[in-house]
Amino acid sequence: MATEPVPAELLRVREQIDRIDQGLVLLLANRFALTQRVGELKAEHGLESVDPDREMNKLAEIRAICVKHKVDPGLVSEILERVMREVVKNHDAIKGQALNSQSG
Amino acid sequence: MATEPVPAELLRVREQIDRIDQGLVLLLANRFALTQRVGELKAEHGLESVDPDREMNKLAEIRAICVKHKVDPGLVSEILERVMREVVKNHDAIKGQALNSQSG
Repeated sequence: MATEPVPAELLRVREQIDRIDQGLVLLLANRFALTQRVGELKAEHGLESVDPDREMNKLAEIRAICVKHKVDPGLVSEILERVMREVVKNHDAIKGQALNSQSG
Repeated sequence: MATEPVPAELLRVREQIDRIDQGLVLLLANRFALTQRVGELKAEHGLESVDPDREMNKLAEIRAICVKHKVDPGLVSEILERVMREVVKNHDAIKGQALNSQSG
């Protein structure tokens, strides 16, 4: 097989992928804004940063949606677990700030 | 701080997060369908599975969108690089199948 210039259809499909990636970033931006609020509420109400039941249910639900839409559940769970680890880190930071301002 | 039951606002915010996660899975499902087509086109036209220029431009573009929407570019790039690694693996598999069917 000889190397050819990039075919027109490939360029069109790539444009669609670019739009999807923009959508992914927007959804993640919204998600982090919402989990920021969750962190504040948890700190206000003295709830733990990690909620193992919520995480377990969330991952089970995501796996079911993946199966329905024929996406690899392993890869998507891996991505979501990465996002959730970041969220817990942020929640711990918000809690720390709340405790500091109480003791200050 | 005493542990309290989950406040109503937290439950409402979680419902919004759940809807976002469904959106994320749908976008990823669409993305994998499109990259499947990219893999087929690359195999047909004898193009390499990995396109370092495209990947580099893609990551730079994603970082710019992240900065615009105040999302951590490091985390999102990490997620996208994970997705792209999977896509390259799939493209290699498609290429292998195309070569096998040519030689068979």
